[in-house]
Amino acid sequence: MAILSWDQNTYMPPAAAEARGHQLSLLGKLVHQKKTDPRLGELLEDLEKETASSSFDSDQAAIVRVAKRQYEEAQKVSADFMARFYRHITETTQVWLEAREANDFDKVAPYLKKTLELSLEYAGFFPEKEHVSDPLINRSDYGMKASTLRKLFQELRRELVPFVEAVTKKPASDRSSLVQSYPVQKQLDFSKEIIKQMGFDFNRGRVDLSAHPFMTRFAAGDIRITTRVNERDISEALFSTIHEAGHALYELGIRPEYDGTPLYDGTSSGVHESQSRLWENVIARSREFWTYFYPQLQATFPTQLGRVTLEEFYRAINHVKRSLIRTEADELTYNLHVIIRFDLELLMLEGKLRVEDLRDAWNERYQSDLGITPPDDRSGVLQDIHWYADFIGGQFQGYALGNILSCQFYEAALKDAPHIPEQIAHGDFTALHSWLKEQIYQHGSKYTADELIRRATGSELTIQPYLDYLRKKYSELYL
Amino acid sequence: MAILSWDQNTYMPPAAAEARGHQLSLLGKLVHQKKTDPRLGELLEDLEKETASSSFDSDQAAIVRVAKRQYEEAQKVSADFMARFYRHITETTQVWLEAREANDFDKVAPYLKKTLELSLEYAGFFPEKEHVSDPLINRSDYGMKASTLRKLFQELRRELVPFVEAVTKKPASDRSSLVQSYPVQKQLDFSKEIIKQMGFDFNRGRVDLSAHPFMTRFAAGDIRITTRVNERDISEALFSTIHEAGHALYELGIRPEYDGTPLYDGTSSGVHESQSRLWENVIARSREFWTYFYPQLQATFPTQLGRVTLEEFYRAINHVKRSLIRTEADELTYNLHVIIRFDLELLMLEGKLRVEDLRDAWNERYQSDLGITPPDDRSGVLQDIHWYADFIGGQFQGYALGNILSCQFYEAALKDAPHIPEQIAHGDFTALHSWLKEQIYQHGSKYTADELIRRATGSELTIQPYLDYLRKKYSELYL
Repeated sequence: MAILSWDQNTYMPPAAAEARGHQLSLLGKLVHQKKTDPRLGELLEDLEKETASSSFDSDQAAIVRVAKRQYEEAQKVSADFMARFYRHITETTQVWLEAREANDFDKVAPYLKKTLELSLEYAGFFPEKEHVSDPLINRSDYGMKASTLRKLFQELRRELVPFVEAVTKKPASDRSSLVQSYPVQKQLDFSKEIIKQMGFDFNRGRVDLSAHPFMTRFAAGDIRITTRVNERDISEALFSTIHEAGHALYELGIRPEYDGTPLYDGTSSGVHESQSRLWENVIARSREFWTYFYPQLQATFPTQLGRVTLEEFYRAINHVKRSLIRTEADELTYNLHVIIRFDLELLMLEGKLRVEDLRDAWNERYQSDLGITPPDDRSGVLQDIHWYADFIGGQFQGYALGNILSCQFYEAALKDAPHIPEQIAHGDFTALHSWLKEQIYQHGSKYTADELIRRATGSELTIQPYLDYLRKKYSELYL
Repeated sequence: MAILSWDQNTYMPPAAAEARGHQLSLLGKLVHQKKTDPRLGELLEDLEKETASSSFDSDQAAIVRVAKRQYEEAQKVSADFMARFYRHITETTQVWLEAREANDFDKVAPYLKKTLELSLEYAGFFPEKEHVSDPLINRSDYGMKASTLRKLFQELRRELVPFVEAVTKKPASDRSSLVQSYPVQKQLDFSKEIIKQMGFDFNRGRVDLSAHPFMTRFAAGDIRITTRVNERDISEALFSTIHEAGHALYELGIRPEYDGTPLYDGTSSGVHESQSRLWENVIARSREFWTYFYPQLQATFPTQLGRVTLEEFYRAINHVKRSLIRTEADELTYNLHVIIRFDLELLMLEGKLRVEDLRDAWNERYQSDLGITPPDDRSGVLQDIHWYADFIGGQFQGYALGNILSCQFYEAALKDAPHIPEQIAHGDFTALHSWLKEQIYQHGSKYTADELIRRATGSELTIQPYLDYLRKKYSELYL
């Protein structure tokens, strides 16, 4: 399924779309059958007994633990429900495309209403839940709870909203140097050169082009990313490639002996996103990073950047602006976009917000949190595919967690290896890479996100390092 | 499996090889299980009863007929045998690579001996066979018999050997214009332009690069070819691309309503190869074809071809030479290479030639048929992967049949539409394409090769049109 999706997004000819849909849906059914085969459950029971006396840190025990958890989760949801859900969702995505084209949320609202019902039905398969959203959050961020996240995000929002307001009152940095004509192939070559130096192994992976960049894995020796190149804006290729390479480094760094077991995977979407955001933002939007790479970038694009100083470039790539589109948002405002969506998901699932009123609620929150109101649905409630291609609930928290964790992990890394920034200024990523591999990458999904965070940082998930990082960086730049 | 193989040969990173092998072998096992599931047999029995009163030409009846044939063939061979065979073959291919590197047939001979035993064991699953080779031939050329092929090929050899001798006594045409420096991208673009004009639909397919060109199909709307480009020899990209496009046109032309049924496939390797060879040789090595395309080729490569006349180019691409390597052989000598292999396969299977003596037998036949003796194993008995990656038997007849049939079909097409060459000289392939679609393409595997040949040409398989074509073309060029 991974390779069919990769191909669908990179090379597939247009007329293949319908057949590819059937192929993926057939495979999905076969996979579900295998995943929920009672014989698998019996075998896992036996293995659980056999590993009962093993320590928690034993790989064998961890494999059984994770496999059993995945089996039980799959087992709870009826195959009939999933088939109904996928049929509904295929249609909804199609209607969303039309609604977006027509710039009219009302066209898709009835479908989204049905999606909400199905999301609640899904949650109903997990009677032991604390909050209706928890089973949906568990799908990608196992162990995270709506109650914890709501508290953290509220705190974050309380701090961020006034800080963003202060920063955006000041004149924004000039990013015109980024939006010139940059030959596509050169951008791609330069981006690949950067990620090679970061540690991306081209023997075990490759880079292709797609409309929406992503990372995928076919085996431990075959971890691929895609990127996109905008001839008119060099920041797209640079930061998309680095972002996806961050995801790839995580999976390339998992212990090779986990290949083919449930442990060869990232442990949660939040931790995965922390690795892409760490490289994309904390590292690749830092002065140190460009101290090393900027002279090379200038040499590659002398007419475009010959007269732009390192400091001007640094400010250009850290431009902050109140904006409407999540995927184009800068590092400082990004999590506000995410928290809006997370809160709206909870309200809908709790029955406190009707789908019919979603557009208004969306627009109000953009005004209150970011100080702007979407002029239309396309740049508002219709912008993200998530709710129109999956459940409502559990879709967005991973992005916010990723940003928060990127700083929590980096702070811990700096404590252990304070020379990381100095090394990076010389194009040397060894110390950072080693820390990440040791503390995060190698474990794959052996530990849950909670366990991993505690092991790597010595504390629970906390927003403090993230807030400290943003305050320090953006005060220096703007205040 | 098709997309995993395509990827393996086009884009897969090196370190993925081992895992890809496991993935393909697992899928192979699952496919075999489904193909031989007794429940499938029962369903086919029911369907056979239901379609018993349908006419032979009914699509429903044809689907059941072909599915049942495939089911019964798969059913006869034990899963255990296939597993043993694949394990042996994986190892043999590896040893062959080493033997070829060492230029020493003796290194792989013991493995080949085992392959011969396994090939005989395979044949043993089909007790009703007329000749031990027939079940192996049936795998790709259903219905063809060793006795028929041996007779045809003997006749062909009797005619070809003296004719090749006469032609190669004359001075060979000058092909130095082809072996200059030709920029790779321009070659690829030009080749794609040609096949587009031939009717290759880029909406339903694409062209990628691979070491060994091939065609593959993922769905009726997704039929892909690969090609290779040699910067130092323009003929490689041109004729490889046209050859594979010939295969693709066949499958692109199958009735769309057969998609997803066993009828959406070429009917045999011989008929499939007839379509690639028809376009590659009969059409794309003709004066008419280049009357249209040569001025464009000259305009694309003015420094290389500006002073080479159409007639000189035509002679260059129809250069004839006694050579050792099948894949590099010209149109005239090609089938002699194939017949040697076919005869040696039969002798081994009949127990008349020991594997230990294969090298000597090979070299003797090259001397008697082509007038040259391989100086080493690499340019002799070790050159083709076929015997080292599959059974002995049924591996080569399709190539010879393809050449023979390409002329038999073209003769029939000319009878129905004598203006085909005139159209082609104006870059118009409509008449030829329509005839092929009507008589061959659309039917997919509804009719067996035998049935298709009779329907399309009004006669049995015959070597006469092929011999007439070669005699006429090469007498005019060389005698």
